[in-house]
Order: sequence, then C-alpha cells, then structure tokens
Amino acid sequence: MPGNISVLFIMELIGTAAFSCSGAMVAIKKNLDLLGIVVLGVITAVGGGMIRDVLLGIHPPTLFLKPVYVTVAVIAAIIIFLLMRSKNISRFLLTAEYYDWTMNLLDAIGLGAFTVVGVNTSISAGQGNFQFLTIFLGVITGVGGGLLRDMMACEVPAILRKHVYACASIAGAVFYAYIGNRISQDMALILSASLVVVIRLLARHYKWNLPKCNMNHLN
Amino acid sequence: MPGNISVLFIMELIGTAAFSCSGAMVAIKKNLDLLGIVVLGVITAVGGGMIRDVLLGIHPPTLFLKPVYVTVAVIAAIIIFLLMRSKNISRFLLTAEYYDWTMNLLDAIGLGAFTVVGVNTSISAGQGNFQFLTIFLGVITGVGGGLLRDMMACEVPAILRKHVYACASIAGAVFYAYIGNRISQDMALILSASLVVVIRLLARHYKWNLPKCNMNHLN
Amino acid sequence: MPGNISVLFIMELIGTAAFSCSGAMVAIKKNLDLLGIVVLGVITAVGGGMIRDVLLGIHPPTLFLKPVYVTVAVIAAIIIFLLMRSKNISRFLLTAEYYDWTMNLLDAIGLGAFTVVGVNTSISAGQGNFQFLTIFLGVITGVGGGLLRDMMACEVPAILRKHVYACASIAGAVFYAYIGNRISQDMALILSASLVVVIRLLARHYKWNLPKCNMNHLN
Repeated sequence: MPGNISVLFIMELIGTAAFSCSGAMVAIKKNLDLLGIVVLGVITAVGGGMIRDVLLGIHPPTLFLKPVYVTVAVIAAIIIFLLMRSKNISRFLLTAEYYDWTMNLLDAIGLGAFTVVGVNTSISAGQGNFQFLTIFLGVITGVGGGLLRDMMACEVPAILRKHVYACASIAGAVFYAYIGNRISQDMALILSASLVVVIRLLARHYKWNLPKCNMNHLN
Repeated sequence: MPGNISVLFIMELIGTAAFSCSGAMVAIKKNLDLLGIVVLGVITAVGGGMIRDVLLGIHPPTLFLKPVYVTVAVIAAIIIFLLMRSKNISRFLLTAEYYDWTMNLLDAIGLGAFTVVGVNTSISAGQGNFQFLTIFLGVITGVGGGLLRDMMACEVPAILRKHVYACASIAGAVFYAYIGNRISQDMALILSASLVVVIRLLARHYKWNLPKCNMNHLN
Repeated sequence: MPGNISVLFIMELIGTAAFSCSGAMVAIKKNLDLLGIVVLGVITAVGGGMIRDVLLGIHPPTLFLKPVYVTVAVIAAIIIFLLMRSKNISRFLLTAEYYDWTMNLLDAIGLGAFTVVGVNTSISAGQGNFQFLTIFLGVITGVGGGLLRDMMACEVPAILRKHVYACASIAGAVFYAYIGNRISQDMALILSASLVVVIRLLARHYKWNLPKCNMNHLN
C-alpha cells in the first residue's frame, strides 16, 4: 500500500531531521566547527537505525543503501548552523530557557518517530511474534541516536538523566505493537509517535520526577 | 545434559544480577532517578552478551528473545534502589571504603561469570577451533557491560584503569578454553569463573600494580 | 595478484601500528598503567575494522580470525610504553608542541591507511556498486578506531573537534573509489592514503578552520 509506505517514510524523514537538528545544537553548544556540527547531526540522526539494523542482522544497514537519510541529516544540520549564525536567532534560541525547550521538542519528535519506525522495521523483518524483541528494538531505535550524541559529547545520556525519557519510548512502542493490527497502520504510526511526544512535553512541563536515592546525608 | 545447561544458566543469571547491581550503584552515585538506575543496570547486565552476539552474527541477540535476562536485571536494580533508600544501609555501603569494595566484588562476579559464558557461547556457535577468537570473545563478553556502563557514566572504563582487570578476564578465558574438555564442563565453568573473581579480589587487596610511565617530571 | 595483497596487507599493518601508538599515547597522558596502555592501543587499532565488519555482516570480524593485527597492536603499544619510560624521550615527545605533532602524524597515517583499506574491503565484500556505501564504510573504518579511543578516554572525539578530520577521510575514500579501477590498485592504495595524510598535515600546519557559530555574545 503506497500510502502506508509514505507515512512511514515521512516519519523517518521527520525523525531524521529532528534528531540531526538536536545533534547540531549540542555541537554548537560545544563550540564545534561546521564539520563537527554536521557529523554530530548525522550520527544522532542515523545512529538509532544503524544499531537496530545491526541487531536485526540487516547487512549493510539501510542508511548505507539509501543516501536520502544522510542527505536530509546533512541539510538539517547546515540549516541549524545558518540559523545560529544569525545573532538574533541564536540569542533567542540559546538562552537557557528556550534552548532546553527547543532541544526537548526536537528530541521528542525524533524519539517518537524512530520508536514507531523501529517497531515497524522489526515486524517487517519477520520478528512480529516476539513482542518483547519488537518493543525493545523500537526503544533502541528511538534512543540510540541520542545516546551516541550524548556519549560523543561527553555528557551523561538523556536516557539516564531525563524525566521519563525511556518510559515515553516504551509507552509508544507498546502502544504501537498492540494497536498496529487493530486500526489503519498510518493512523497507528501517527498516534503512537504523537503519544511519545506528548508524554515528553508533559513530563518536562510538569517536571514529572521519579524517586531518587537521597544521598545528601552522606559526604 | 540438563545439569550442564543449568549451571551455565545459573552463572548467566548471577552475572546478570551482579552487573545490574554494579550499574545501579554507579547510577545512584551519579544521582540519577529510578529509571536511570534501572536503565544503567540493564545496559551493564546485557551489554557484554549483546556485543558478543553481534560479533558472532547471532541475530537477533539472545537477550531479545529470552526476556529472563532483562527481567532479572530490572529486579536486581530495583532491589539495589530500595536498599539504598534506607539511610542506614546506604550510609554503610556508600562510605568510600565499602562502596569500592562492594563495587569491586559485584564487578568481579559479573566479569568472571560472563567471561566463561562468553567462551562457552563462542564454542557453541561452532568457533571452537579458533582459540584466539573464543578467548577474545569471552573477554569482550566479560568486560563489555562494564565498558558501556563506564562510558555512559562518563568515566574512564575500569578495563583501562583497574589493576589487572583485563588480565583477570584473559586468565579465566584461557583457563576455561584449555580445561573445558578435560574435566566436567560444570566444574570447568565454576572453577574458571572463580579464578577471575579470586584474581580481582587479590589484585585489589594487595594493590597489584603494573608499571606506569612516570610523567611527574613533565609539566 | 600476490603483490596487490601484500601492499594492502602492509597498509593494514602500518595503520594498525600507527593507531595503536596513538591510543597508547593517549593512555600514557591519562596516567594509565601498562595494561591500560596496551588495551587502549589495541582498541584504537582494531576498532575501525571491527565496526566495518559488523556493518558489512562479516562474522566474526577478521581481527578475531587473524591474530596478526592484535599482535602488531600489542607490540606497538609496548614499544611506545618502553620509549616513554625513558625520561629524555618522553620529555622530548610530551612537551605540548611535539605531543600534538606526533599524535597528529600517527593519527593521520592510521586514518589514511584504514580509510582506503575500508573502501577496498567493502568492494571485496561485493558492495562495489554502492558508491555511497563503500565511501561511507571507508570513512567509518578510518575514523572508528580514533572514535572509540576518544570516547573511552572521555574526550570529545577528534572527528568532531579537529580541522577537516572527517573531510580528509572522505576525500581519500572518494579518490580511491574513483581512481581504483583506472590505475594499478597498489598505486591507488598508496596515493589515496597519502592524500589523507597530506591533507591532515596541511590542515594542522595552516590551521585550516571551518566556520563556527560565534556564541561569545551569549552568556
């Protein structure tokens, strides 16, 4: 069904662009040059799908056969670079408040899009009977790019640090795995990805926190 | 031989639980929340086996098909979380002295169990004729989880930093590769894993050190 | 053609030794002990090829079947260790000026050798029709080892930070992919690898810089 493929493809492109922008923003904050910005953008954008394909045994990973993903990632990173060269835009975007908000939104869109794309790819690869596998691979596709981005930027990864980051991805993957056969696939893809984005935005707005071990009485 | 499988399986579970606890402890020290603690625990526990399966071409990696490993890792991390919520236990465990000792023990058990499991998996995958491969993959299975843990926590990995860490794993893998056919496999598994643990504990106690390049005369 | 194989093989050994030395130097700067030096050297030396083989679906990766690469890497790291134990040599090499220059040269040689070896391996694996894939895999083979080295040493990877690092690798890979069939393969290998080294040396000497986003007006 061509309509089906195109919704999936559009989500892949949206996720690619959003993650590339988030990688580019981190690179700019780290004061890297244009090439560093593009490289970190590309790695963030294609990293999750590459890890998924390696785990599923898809050789070589799709990104190497279809240059469209890397191309979109490069263009997105360059656009961010050009935007941030403008003093007014960068002053606006990089104030502590907006930077966090922008990064969170870009990251949430990438996370949502790639989580459902990942679940879908695992099912297409004939692993649909292993619910645990498809959900886990969806989450890895979703969080993989941001994980590589943060590890390369020498920061504790968002998946460990941020309110309900992995939870949002798991929720989207579980939702898609169960709803995928019951409604039209296009609708399932869009709804599941949106669920991830909404959870991430709500988590940030209401500062949903999980309990910590209070270590203040030590030291 | 069912008895054989179960010793191997029990060692996998022990290694999984021990590594998950060590990942959870690092996460607690980094002041991460419950989800960060569980995620780092799971990655530490299943990371080594995942890397081994990818290198051996086992698609998808075993951990995705048998949820028992992830389940054990999640439970172990939650238990550590609950224990550390208690002021008395955490005060006891997280003083510099005991924390290091506990981490070293957990890490040594995981290292020992996963090293021999890794050698065994490589042999089962039909690579028994390549001694170098089976030993190397055993070491990677052993050190892989801790490596991912330390890289995600932005610390120089234990394998680079700690007294005879890689050496202990190599010793256990070589011992198992050579003794595996000569005595009962159960006994070989237990003896080889114990060897790793004993080397690590002795190394820490006697502060076995390898020579360094003294750079003090610089700067 | 045996002559052909041996030029390729010699370049692999040169790249392995050069990258192992660069990993060992980073380990020495981080004050690691002999084992840490050897381990980081080996990972830097074999990391790029291992990542390439995993992406191409070559199981198990070549390095596990031919111990020569790991052996060369271990020897190279030990030689660096012994050299740096000498006060005079280490004082000479580790002054800020020469350390950077030495590291840059070793890294450039490794980058050049592994980039063309990577393109060549991808073509040998039957992927020669996918220009994008072969070039991309060449670059990953070239930069992969240094990437793992820097991530394990908790530094922002050279590929993100250094003047035209990835560009040099891309230039060498593109040059080799297009010239490979037109002149003798030996000559193509040597010329392409040399191109990478020359670009890196020129980039450092003339401090070629790509534009950055100036963030000084913030904060």
